[in-house]
Amino acid sequence: MGVKKEARLRGRFKEDINEAVQHYLASLPYDWRLHRHDIEGSLAHAEMLARQKIITRSDYTSIRDGLHSIMKEIESGRFQFKLELEDIHMNIESRLFELIGDTAGKLHTARSRNDQVALDMRLYARRAAWKVLEALQRFNSQLVDIAEKNIKVIMPGYTHLQQAQPVLFSHHVMAYFQMFSRDIQRFESCLSRINIMPLGSGALAGLPYPVDREFIAGKLGFDDISANSIDAVSDRDFIIEFESAAAIAMMHLSRMAEEIIIWSTAEFGFIEVGDAYATSSSIMPQKKNPDAAELARGKTGRVYGHLMAMLTVMKGLPLAYNRDLQEDKESLFDTVDTLISSLDIVSGIVSSIRINAARMKYSMQSYILATDMADYLVKKGLSFREAHDVVSRLVTYAVDNNRELNELDIREYRGFSKLFDKDVLAITLQKSVEAKSSQGGTATVEVKKSIERARDVIRGYEKKQS
Amino acid sequence: MGVKKEARLRGRFKEDINEAVQHYLASLPYDWRLHRHDIEGSLAHAEMLARQKIITRSDYTSIRDGLHSIMKEIESGRFQFKLELEDIHMNIESRLFELIGDTAGKLHTARSRNDQVALDMRLYARRAAWKVLEALQRFNSQLVDIAEKNIKVIMPGYTHLQQAQPVLFSHHVMAYFQMFSRDIQRFESCLSRINIMPLGSGALAGLPYPVDREFIAGKLGFDDISANSIDAVSDRDFIIEFESAAAIAMMHLSRMAEEIIIWSTAEFGFIEVGDAYATSSSIMPQKKNPDAAELARGKTGRVYGHLMAMLTVMKGLPLAYNRDLQEDKESLFDTVDTLISSLDIVSGIVSSIRINAARMKYSMQSYILATDMADYLVKKGLSFREAHDVVSRLVTYAVDNNRELNELDIREYRGFSKLFDKDVLAITLQKSVEAKSSQGGTATVEVKKSIERARDVIRGYEKKQS
Amino acid sequence: MGVKKEARLRGRFKEDINEAVQHYLASLPYDWRLHRHDIEGSLAHAEMLARQKIITRSDYTSIRDGLHSIMKEIESGRFQFKLELEDIHMNIESRLFELIGDTAGKLHTARSRNDQVALDMRLYARRAAWKVLEALQRFNSQLVDIAEKNIKVIMPGYTHLQQAQPVLFSHHVMAYFQMFSRDIQRFESCLSRINIMPLGSGALAGLPYPVDREFIAGKLGFDDISANSIDAVSDRDFIIEFESAAAIAMMHLSRMAEEIIIWSTAEFGFIEVGDAYATSSSIMPQKKNPDAAELARGKTGRVYGHLMAMLTVMKGLPLAYNRDLQEDKESLFDTVDTLISSLDIVSGIVSSIRINAARMKYSMQSYILATDMADYLVKKGLSFREAHDVVSRLVTYAVDNNRELNELDIREYRGFSKLFDKDVLAITLQKSVEAKSSQGGTATVEVKKSIERARDVIRGYEKKQS
Amino acid sequence: MGVKKEARLRGRFKEDINEAVQHYLASLPYDWRLHRHDIEGSLAHAEMLARQKIITRSDYTSIRDGLHSIMKEIESGRFQFKLELEDIHMNIESRLFELIGDTAGKLHTARSRNDQVALDMRLYARRAAWKVLEALQRFNSQLVDIAEKNIKVIMPGYTHLQQAQPVLFSHHVMAYFQMFSRDIQRFESCLSRINIMPLGSGALAGLPYPVDREFIAGKLGFDDISANSIDAVSDRDFIIEFESAAAIAMMHLSRMAEEIIIWSTAEFGFIEVGDAYATSSSIMPQKKNPDAAELARGKTGRVYGHLMAMLTVMKGLPLAYNRDLQEDKESLFDTVDTLISSLDIVSGIVSSIRINAARMKYSMQSYILATDMADYLVKKGLSFREAHDVVSRLVTYAVDNNRELNELDIREYRGFSKLFDKDVLAITLQKSVEAKSSQGGTATVEVKKSIERARDVIRGYEKKQS
Repeated sequence: MGVKKEARLRGRFKEDINEAVQHYLASLPYDWRLHRHDIEGSLAHAEMLARQKIITRSDYTSIRDGLHSIMKEIESGRFQFKLELEDIHMNIESRLFELIGDTAGKLHTARSRNDQVALDMRLYARRAAWKVLEALQRFNSQLVDIAEKNIKVIMPGYTHLQQAQPVLFSHHVMAYFQMFSRDIQRFESCLSRINIMPLGSGALAGLPYPVDREFIAGKLGFDDISANSIDAVSDRDFIIEFESAAAIAMMHLSRMAEEIIIWSTAEFGFIEVGDAYATSSSIMPQKKNPDAAELARGKTGRVYGHLMAMLTVMKGLPLAYNRDLQEDKESLFDTVDTLISSLDIVSGIVSSIRINAARMKYSMQSYILATDMADYLVKKGLSFREAHDVVSRLVTYAVDNNRELNELDIREYRGFSKLFDKDVLAITLQKSVEAKSSQGGTATVEVKKSIERARDVIRGYEKKQS
Repeated sequence: MGVKKEARLRGRFKEDINEAVQHYLASLPYDWRLHRHDIEGSLAHAEMLARQKIITRSDYTSIRDGLHSIMKEIESGRFQFKLELEDIHMNIESRLFELIGDTAGKLHTARSRNDQVALDMRLYARRAAWKVLEALQRFNSQLVDIAEKNIKVIMPGYTHLQQAQPVLFSHHVMAYFQMFSRDIQRFESCLSRINIMPLGSGALAGLPYPVDREFIAGKLGFDDISANSIDAVSDRDFIIEFESAAAIAMMHLSRMAEEIIIWSTAEFGFIEVGDAYATSSSIMPQKKNPDAAELARGKTGRVYGHLMAMLTVMKGLPLAYNRDLQEDKESLFDTVDTLISSLDIVSGIVSSIRINAARMKYSMQSYILATDMADYLVKKGLSFREAHDVVSRLVTYAVDNNRELNELDIREYRGFSKLFDKDVLAITLQKSVEAKSSQGGTATVEVKKSIERARDVIRGYEKKQS
Repeated sequence: MGVKKEARLRGRFKEDINEAVQHYLASLPYDWRLHRHDIEGSLAHAEMLARQKIITRSDYTSIRDGLHSIMKEIESGRFQFKLELEDIHMNIESRLFELIGDTAGKLHTARSRNDQVALDMRLYARRAAWKVLEALQRFNSQLVDIAEKNIKVIMPGYTHLQQAQPVLFSHHVMAYFQMFSRDIQRFESCLSRINIMPLGSGALAGLPYPVDREFIAGKLGFDDISANSIDAVSDRDFIIEFESAAAIAMMHLSRMAEEIIIWSTAEFGFIEVGDAYATSSSIMPQKKNPDAAELARGKTGRVYGHLMAMLTVMKGLPLAYNRDLQEDKESLFDTVDTLISSLDIVSGIVSSIRINAARMKYSMQSYILATDMADYLVKKGLSFREAHDVVSRLVTYAVDNNRELNELDIREYRGFSKLFDKDVLAITLQKSVEAKSSQGGTATVEVKKSIERARDVIRGYEKKQS
Repeated sequence: MGVKKEARLRGRFKEDINEAVQHYLASLPYDWRLHRHDIEGSLAHAEMLARQKIITRSDYTSIRDGLHSIMKEIESGRFQFKLELEDIHMNIESRLFELIGDTAGKLHTARSRNDQVALDMRLYARRAAWKVLEALQRFNSQLVDIAEKNIKVIMPGYTHLQQAQPVLFSHHVMAYFQMFSRDIQRFESCLSRINIMPLGSGALAGLPYPVDREFIAGKLGFDDISANSIDAVSDRDFIIEFESAAAIAMMHLSRMAEEIIIWSTAEFGFIEVGDAYATSSSIMPQKKNPDAAELARGKTGRVYGHLMAMLTVMKGLPLAYNRDLQEDKESLFDTVDTLISSLDIVSGIVSSIRINAARMKYSMQSYILATDMADYLVKKGLSFREAHDVVSRLVTYAVDNNRELNELDIREYRGFSKLFDKDVLAITLQKSVEAKSSQGGTATVEVKKSIERARDVIRGYEKKQS
């Protein structure tokens, strides 16, 4: 029996598929990346078949050895991939026929392409989720180091990109720690829905063989087996959920990238990105461009796009498997590649940054203490609304006279409210920061606590992984 | 002090905002829906302020009574909403000034608009998640009833919308139970990130008051307080995550709606949607259109769109609060409304359906048993690949001679393989179904087990809610 | 015959639709906005029916007068909208029955809901396109005024948000003129596909009446009639195309908004937005936030979302009309409202801006002239690549020694290349700008030419409209 | 001078870029596809430089010959691409240095990477648009052939996927002709905005050289030169517009694919897709799956995703060039590849289809003529609404008695309205079709006219191309 014809499974068709169609249908150019997972799944499947006496022990040994050989061929680069076999599964199967003869045909007992592909994608997505989690944890760990190291740096905190109140640079950094912590939670939650074993669902109806699905699940480290065969072959929720968690994580990166870019401008001058993460210009010799940060921001679009693509693919699709589902692969692969590389690159950028603490401090206008002055008046008995009103008028006066607040004398202050005393002049950036000692606030003591808690969380990651 | 001016907070500005700008900036047309949450949050905040002696007990009593009056005014429809006050928060605050005078100004002590809005949105999203969970559980409960009631109905199972293998109708229905169960998991997971209390973060830096954030969290039933004030006011992850869970759930509904529409065609004729969920035509008197299912399918686009909108809004936004975030409201409100109403409507459609079991059975071609014949040959010793090849040729022969498989006689079968015996003619739809007795397969015994497990899950929901 | 029953068109159904379903299906809450277009279309249709003797002249007169009365009732606010009649079309039709009796039924001769809705949406979209075009032209006209008025202002031009080369502020402004000019082209192109008359397509197959479609098209000012009845009732391309043109226009606004926000920071300080377009803070008395610009940037997400929604709705929809199409309305209405209001608001912001020319100039570092120095060397015979290399080293030297380029003396220059002569010290911002006199460059003479050409284009708009 | 260092343009940087960053930033893996356009652009640029005496004639000859050699090296596969040179432009430039020495440096005179990339992308997009137009026109031409060939086939026309009225199969096919005709218009319109020559814009400010931009535009076949240098390097509208036209075209393909899939079911049985476009199943020997159509439907998601990605990339990006823009390439390349291959594949599927006209006819229920009966009554004097009501009751009677309309006798008809005469029984599918003779209707005479007009349009394409 010709392998090729067999491989094509085109039993009852009379006309051959043409080359353009083959290219259109072929997934080999990207799904070769599943080879390890495909072989891993086949090994577990074959072992189960032998244990359940669906195939003989010697058939199993032969299949197992053949698969091991193929794995070695692929990893050493000797494997001949054939586009005309369309996908990685048929490439491996066809090679198995060459190596061990017709026994290869028994590997497909009690297995359909539909549940095999679902298994491979879940193995891939699981590994990808693990890698994303590691990258997020690495990044978080680094953020905590940076926060700890720069605990004395004060910068303007912004709302509406206007200077609002002074904050610790470390407090700002720890805000990202919180974002990535939520990303970690989302990927962990998603993982619990990825890690379900679909094999044994057949084409859609289940199998007329005494298969042991729990055995395969145990062998491959799955948490559970899928509960409904129709759902198992048509479900791609785990891919969409992965991509939506990735989209949110990329959004976080885009916010950080935006800040890196703005802070690197000549006008802000808060930071300088390391040379390794910047590029020069082909025409402007003085330029030092934060290209890597810009590209990370740009790549957010790509991940959003993949999410939208998969949502579109699945919309209105009747059960069970449809060929549309093949579009899940490139979408997920590129999402994973983009997210992991972007996390690593942005993490690298952050660690390369030289902080210009003096510039941060110097840039702050005295007006940034206006809220503190309102709080000062509240403590002297005004309602916050009244205090706000007094200080608004005070600021207007200063701006109109082109003076900073700390350039006004106490008489001028008292012109706006008799509650002002000399101690109002003692309000400083540092005092403003330390006053914000509510839980989660920017006071040094609070930020240090949050760094401590973060260290605990990170030790938790590390324990888990070891 | 004029309430209106105060309300506008435009202290140091000299030029008034014009009407077009006011309309553009105003969120009142949609955020009035937050009124209950806003008042609920203010009550907890005021109580905390009093406990912490930041305001006096009598100020608190006065604020509390004022807020209660406002709640009654709103609920009874007597409240005068004013667009010029822009949002629900200023509407309530301004009315409080009218009712209790300047004491109203103290409510804003130790609170900023930024953390107040974050609190209100979390209270809204939490309640919305609870309602979505109830709707999903109701639907799931109903699906189990339908699966149980129709356990004897066999229908063609499809892949590629081609008849593949016979399955129990109940098995197909239970595939959707699995999908909605994952939706429930996702909303529950999301809820754990929604249910975090942000108040006490101030504008972005925390507060210079001895606030008790844990007290507020306990009072309002939150699981925890937010850990970083900058993150707390600029985080909208919980909205995007909610919307992405909603997008997946709508995708599931769109798949069900598509099947309802296809099965309702004259050509399929598997089901008839109840009159209450169908419409007629203005021009074609015979039409009975499954409009409600079509609209549910269409509304999938709307929810995808809201997700994409929020991802776009957040892309590249520097910390902390920016006015762009105001766009979160309509996006989330409409997502919630659409998802809940669509779940209820599709659930209603499903319960109204009249199943035409005879038509389902009659529609199945004998070829749908081809896999069973291949399995038959495997049990007699062929490899699956060889068996597949034999049956392919057998089917081709039948199709070419315009005959069904059960119209061939045993000699014709044996022309393709000597392994065929008379018992091959005894393969029936029912036997095919019952043979798929692997875990999660379509055999009646397996489907009944899955129904039992589902009943347990549902009892779990009910216990939780009571 | 009961109007209500008639109105519901539920001839052969035995069960009534319930209230939840009615709310789900009802489009009245938004499609009431089509009332004028619906009546306009009905008037033209009735007139045609009379001309073609499909109805009598007196029937026509009666229908026409009835429709005029209804128009007046709606415009004066006296019309009673009824949600149970689901849409604006049935509301008007039902009222017509009340006003003129059974003759009202004749209006529906030779017309189906499907082609009627298609007509109304095209009339709406056409008017919307006209309004968008006006708003774009108004904005462009204003940009030209601003460019002309500020022709002497030099600002740093940016790439990668790093200072790159000095440019005229007017040149930067005129870049937006180009963007909006392309938006105008796109909406004009889209208009040619909107302005096609679909009435006379029946439900999907055409009509068995001697209708005169050209007459209706002429009466309503359409360019042509639709060519295929099936396509005419199922086509929503014009809505998606409109929304994609709107998405690009919003993207342009988001870029401008981003620049307004960045330039308004304390750190840049290039501009100050007028009070009318800024807001203060509830907690920080000194803040002046460019809220309107932020919101315009945020609303970009909403328009992207609507585009994605409609693409999703249409994906995989079989011909001809399906109820999913009802989702086109809110999507388009909100796109139009958002785009027009955002154009007007951003245009208003721009006109309110106070430019701080001194700050723009002062912010430029000498390094911004590095390319000019490379060009200087090229003119003395180096290849550009060599010149770039020399100046790179020169800049590194200056940066390392913490000096500006114009603080180096000629000997230091000559240390890097003997081609430097004293005239290198005469390179100024102004000279740099004026040197860029290639077509489309930033030299004043070129920018003035582009302003002149823009004036011609604007005169072209105005002529067209008058 | 080392080519590599030069190539990296990292003049003033002290630290080398690391490998991970290099991979992240590198566009070579995809932008090698621009090589032809890059060389084509460089040739025109160099020729202009020589004509304008910016470089010498002999420098030009040397550059030209070097570029020709490089082109040959690339096309013959001998060119050594180097990832460390990041992009195709530096690969070519670096090779030019190797081939002709330092003269190569002069090619970069009066050109920046920013305008060079913009030029290359426009050359690519223009060629892509031409190819898409050809594919659309080919497809349209084929649709007309099919419509003409099958002019006698009657099928059920659908609304809501319910049988509505009989239509000519050719009329249904010609609906797609209309859709693709609009796609053609959109790509032609987009082409007018693509075909603008950006070179000569420098990095962003224009050039201090006497360049002749019109010469380059003429040489490369552009319609015009860009009008503003800042806009020219930061504009990617043409890519988004291309992608949105592609998204609409893919949506059209997805609708056609959906119909092919539904019509290929055993239940509809209207068509059979050619073997060349179908695949079998690995487990179900009888299956013939319309995989190519499913994949085309699925690939719609990918194109939507690319559109969303680019809209996201551009959102809120300040002027002028930012590295985010690099994301335009893969997005556009894959959009083009997907659209063209999908058009060709679906066109191939359509031409491979075997139409089962008997099945189409047989599937129609008599109720499909109900509207014709209402029209019959209108011609006898009822209003359409009254006629609709009569026929509704008639159909209900028939359905309740399980009879087709043509099985009722004339007395039964007259029980519903005395206006019924014997000739009502003579209403047939064919007569129903022919009655729809309004312009654009399904009557044979009208469909033939539309085919004629389509032929004219196609002859127009052909003339244009020759």
